[in-house]
Order: sequence, then structure tokens, then C-alpha cells
Amino acid sequence: MVDISRGSALGTSGASELFQLLRDGVPRTRASLAQATGLARSTVAARVDELMDLGLITPVADAVSTGGRPPSQFALNPASRLVLAADLGASHAIIAVTDLTGTVLAQHGEPMDIADGPERVLGWMVEQGLALVDGLGRDRHDLVAVGIGVPGPVEHSTGRPVNPPIMPGWDRFDVPGWVQQHLEVPVLVDNDVNIMALGERALAWPAVEHLVFVKVATGIGSGIISGGLLQRGAQGIAGDIGHIQVARGADVPCHCGNRGCLEALASGPAIARALRERGVEAVGGNDVIDLVKRGDLEAIQAVRQAGRDIGEVLTACVSLVNPSVIAIGGSMARAGEHLIAGVREAVYSRSMPLATEHLAIVQSAAAGNAAVLGASMLAIHHALSPEGIDALAAR
Amino acid sequence: MVDISRGSALGTSGASELFQLLRDGVPRTRASLAQATGLARSTVAARVDELMDLGLITPVADAVSTGGRPPSQFALNPASRLVLAADLGASHAIIAVTDLTGTVLAQHGEPMDIADGPERVLGWMVEQGLALVDGLGRDRHDLVAVGIGVPGPVEHSTGRPVNPPIMPGWDRFDVPGWVQQHLEVPVLVDNDVNIMALGERALAWPAVEHLVFVKVATGIGSGIISGGLLQRGAQGIAGDIGHIQVARGADVPCHCGNRGCLEALASGPAIARALRERGVEAVGGNDVIDLVKRGDLEAIQAVRQAGRDIGEVLTACVSLVNPSVIAIGGSMARAGEHLIAGVREAVYSRSMPLATEHLAIVQSAAAGNAAVLGASMLAIHHALSPEGIDALAAR
Repeated sequence: MVDISRGSALGTSGASELFQLLRDGVPRTRASLAQATGLARSTVAARVDELMDLGLITPVADAVSTGGRPPSQFALNPASRLVLAADLGASHAIIAVTDLTGTVLAQHGEPMDIADGPERVLGWMVEQGLALVDGLGRDRHDLVAVGIGVPGPVEHSTGRPVNPPIMPGWDRFDVPGWVQQHLEVPVLVDNDVNIMALGERALAWPAVEHLVFVKVATGIGSGIISGGLLQRGAQGIAGDIGHIQVARGADVPCHCGNRGCLEALASGPAIARALRERGVEAVGGNDVIDLVKRGDLEAIQAVRQAGRDIGEVLTACVSLVNPSVIAIGGSMARAGEHLIAGVREAVYSRSMPLATEHLAIVQSAAAGNAAVLGASMLAIHHALSPEGIDALAAR
Repeated sequence: MVDISRGSALGTSGASELFQLLRDGVPRTRASLAQATGLARSTVAARVDELMDLGLITPVADAVSTGGRPPSQFALNPASRLVLAADLGASHAIIAVTDLTGTVLAQHGEPMDIADGPERVLGWMVEQGLALVDGLGRDRHDLVAVGIGVPGPVEHSTGRPVNPPIMPGWDRFDVPGWVQQHLEVPVLVDNDVNIMALGERALAWPAVEHLVFVKVATGIGSGIISGGLLQRGAQGIAGDIGHIQVARGADVPCHCGNRGCLEALASGPAIARALRERGVEAVGGNDVIDLVKRGDLEAIQAVRQAGRDIGEVLTACVSLVNPSVIAIGGSMARAGEHLIAGVREAVYSRSMPLATEHLAIVQSAAAGNAAVLGASMLAIHHALSPEGIDALAAR
């Protein structure tokens, strides 16, 4: 056990504070750490030893010899610990075990009905997650955090789903508390679209501070990163754009009880319904994608119009949030440029020039892995925080 | 001169870090500071002495004696320094000198044309600001920061206005650089609606983390505080809602070149124009307010409809930002409950229940002082930051 009694103004140990400098993976010497922190070299040396004992940092060979004995450098050891990431969808689940940079070491996915309720779904997650860890030949104690995405609003402070419309049995369920009966590590829970935004940013836009991820699938939602931070709002439902009204939709009823909601016009099922009304056979979003891929003109036009509808709503988003990247993901994004073209058409024709001058509207690069990658980011971010490192040191 | 060579991981001195605990104004003993920071009592004592020498903290009499000699307590000394706050509007300017809690010690306002250009307007601000400081009998060196709000978009990192439509001569002008030729202190510049949000929060909602301030005047804009932080977006224009399209406005041209913008339907001049089309004499927003105060039914109906239009746009804001407070300010807010009632009608009829369950839509409490109060907050926030305190110590 490492002595962490000497805390800082934030109540964290000196070693966990020093680690914040090293978590970026850049190798540093004891001397450069002493210079950056203003700490005595003896203090730095002791804290480096603590972090080495924990396995969190590791000596790094010097790339360039400056003559004489090269100074020892240290950097984050990403392989030292694992996190479990879970993307729990309406009808599927993907879990992954990653290292401390989010690199996937093992992954497993299968059909899964979220309506089976929290105990069955989370029980499966714990069982399969431990099987992945075992399969890697790693110690279960190397697991330091769990990140979970669910298809509904989540109270950020407690990790409890709140009034989730498609998750019967999950309302106010203590997800972290239940999981911690089996895995004694911090458990972070968030809305799936929020973690998709985290995953997309980590994979494709690490330097971007203002990014909006839009998921277009059975429903429509968005995750907003602003000033580098995920925006959750007062009830954890910031970015919930599916029920914003679209001008052309005044006659179209929505399952929410209102009329003309974006989701009632531009979701996968909505596009399929519009095609059926024109005599085209399309049961759901997947049929629409198949028709588009076969070059069906009516399907292409319907997808393009859905893109315009989404773009109409995103025009408000561009004015309010002023992002530099909008990434379009979710199953309907597989319709490719037809959907994006409609979004761009509406956003660029309706927005103020300054807001779109440097705005990129692109297809999601993380695609189907956005959520599980984001769940891993959520877990890693917590595990490597001063609080997370202190908890590790105290284990 | 205080020795600040011993920096922390953030490159700040120990004294400025210790001050972060004391800036909330709560009195603390040396012992409680030592406990909270984990620092040696001798180190705490030295840093307390540094801050006392700077005048930033002051001994506080103990409210309760616990027997024996009571321990000395220290707290922020708000009177020790001053900031200059300026609200530069299109046709008026208000400046104020406040203490370190934002309490106004002296204030001055007069008609002022922002189109006179930066050198005349800022020259006036510097001259009048120094006169206020002199009038208080205070040393000009007590001034530690300047906060300025301007009616246009501002590049946050440089304090330069960017393409401001109603500020000829100000585009890319180095406002901080110019002011610093006369006042050698940090100068913070932001959009007027952004600082109104800061001012409103400081005055009426200090504990609220998610607040949207909407200014309804000659133009319409909003300032968004989310997660406790002002949101500026990639180009510093987050919250620029004036040109979001409103459903009923398809035929109404806007000065931006588009049609149906919120500003073309619900601003003061837009409401006056709608009244003139019905034969009611109203040149501008002030006439509309006068008519409403006299109980003119057509004016009341027009203001209520403008409220509905604003509410339509705020519905998107509620979905995207999920605030717990929307405060309506600007000159047209003087129309009172008629405007707010229209906003509420639209927002509550169109939003999802979870988003409005705990949402307050209210008239601005700070009213005409929101901007100058917010400018003061901008300056104080910087002056009391670790960086600001270090700069003070080095003077």
C-alpha cells in the first residue's frame, strides 16, 4: 500500500497529481517533471516510484542519446490496466475490453433486448465482460472501471436511467450499484448518443472542442461536446433533438403525442412509412438502406428529404452551439452521401455565414463502434483522474 | 515583491493556489487551510502572510469564542481591489467600478454611438473609468482588470470583435491591446448577451448551472451558461438565435438576406412594423412598450405573438441545451408578462415533459444592469484566478 496521506488542495495525493502530467503518454524525465511542478527532485523521485510500483507508468527507452548516460524517461503504461465498455442498444449489445488508451483488446456483440430488464442485461454484461478478461489471460483485478451506454436519458450524478421510453424496468434503476455487486470498480453510465459523441471525437477529432454527433436510426438524437466537455443539461437530456418540430411536418403525428417532430419525419421507420405511402415496399430503416444501395430513386429522394429535415433542426443547433464538426451516425447514416447532402443543403442555405465558414458536416468515422469506444473513454477518463488514481493506489 | 518562484503543476505560485480556497469569502483558520491542502503549517503561514501583504485577504473576527485565545481567521477582502466594467451598447454606454464581489461602488451612463469607432468609444471609457476611480478617492493602481461587453461577436481568445454587423470600424480591432496602452491590467471582452447571462446568473441564480439569457431588443440573441460555464462555440457565436427560422415567417424578409428569421418577426422594430401594417402608429420598440403599458389590445396581441415566435425557437434551445432557467431581458422585456406568456405558451406546448418539468421561464431580474454586472464578473473571475493573482503579486 502506498502512503497517500499527503493530499493537495483538491484532496488528492501528490502521486495522482503528478500522474496528470504523464497521462498524455508523452515520456518525461524526473528533471522535467520537477521543473514543470516546482516540486523538489526528491519528492518527484518518490512519486515516480509510487506510480512505477502501481505499474501506471513505465521507463521508456530514449530515442536520442545525448552522450553520457541518458536520463531515464517515464510515460503512461497503457497496458497496465483494463476497462470494460458496454454499448447496450435497444436490440443489441456490444462489450469490449480496452487498454488505457481505448485500444480494443477483445470485443463481443450479440442480439439483446434491453426490455429484458436491467438484471438480465447487466448480468450478461458482467458475465461476458469477465469472460473477455479471462480470455485475454489477464487478472480480473486489472479491470479498473466500467463505462456503459444506454438508449435513454440518464441522471449523470447517479448513473440511473430516468423515464427511459424504450427501457421498461430500468426507470431509476441503480445501474452502478448493481454492477458494483459483481465488479468492485467505478461504473459510469450515460446516454448512448452522448458516449457516441465521445467515441467519435476520440477516434476522428481529438483536437476539436465543439462537436455535435447526430444519431439517425429508429430514433433521432444528438450528443453535444462544447468547450471540450460533454454537455448534459439540467436533466441529462441536452441534445434530445428528436422532438423538435419540422416545418413541413405539421400533419404528421408523432408517438410523443405532438405533431411534426423530426423523429416522425426523418427516422428510419418514418422514411420507410413515407415510401410505403408511395407504394414502395419498405418495412423499416434497413429496407430503406437496401433500396438506396440498389439505386432506387424514390428511396434516394426520401433519404435526401430526411437529410433536409434533419438539417433544418441542425440549423438551430449551429446557431445555438456553434460547433466546428457535425458527425452523422446511427444506422441510417449507412445511406451515405444522400443523407449528408440533404443535411448540408439545409444547414448551409439557412445558417449565418460566420457559423458555417469552418463547419464540417461529415459521416461518422467511428460508425458502429462509436458507442462502445465512447463508453471506454468515459471509463478511462474517470480511471485516470486524480480521484481514480487515488482509488487505485488505495486498493 | 513576493517570491512566487515556487510554482505548482499549473505554473502558478503556492499563494495564488491557496487563495483559490479563500476567494469564496468564507473565513478559514491557518489550521483548516493546512488540513484542506495537506501543506505544512509553516508553508500555509507563509502563504497567508503573502496574501495579507497583498491585501487580498484580511483577518476576520470570530463569531463564536470557543474558550481560550480564538484562532485567527482569514477571508477575502473584497474592498482591496477594483475592477472596471463597461456595457457598450449600440447607442448607449454604462460603466461601473465594482469591488471584488461585483458590488457597484460608482456608475455612469450616457448616450454613445458605437459607430463612432473603437478609439473614441474606448477612449471615453478609459477617461470616465479613471474619473470614477478618482471620485471614489481610490488609487488608480487598485484597478486590477477591465471587463467589456460589446454588441457583436467577439473572438474569445483575443478579445477582437469579428464581423460585427452594427459596429463599423471595430472588425478585428485589438480592444485589449488598445485599452492596455492606458490601463495596464488584463482586459476581457465578450459579446453583450454572453455577459448579460453572467450578470443575470450572478444576481439571481448563483446556484444554477444551466441558464439561458435571451435579449429581445432591436436584435434578438442569447447567452448560454451550461455546466456552470459560458458557452461560446467555435467562432464565439454560440447562442446567436436571431436568424433561426420561424414557421409563420416564410414571407417576411430579414436584413440578413434570408426570410422568416426570428429577428424579422419578434424584435422591437419587427413588432412595430407589424402594428403599422394594421394602422397603429409605432415607429420602434419603445412605442410598442408605451402602447402595451396603455393597454392597447393590438399591441398586446402583437407582443404575445412575438413571445410565441421566440418560444418556438427556444423549444429547440430547450431540447439542445436542457436549461433549468430561461431569463428574458433586453428592452422589449419591459412589455412584461405579455411577452413571457407567449414564450411559455410555445415552449410548454411543444417541449418534452422531462425538459420542462423543472424549467423556469422568467423576466430578467438584472434588467438594464445585466450587461455591466456581467462585465464586472468577467473581470473579477480573471483577476481572482491563479493567473490573475500571480500577476497581482508580480506587480
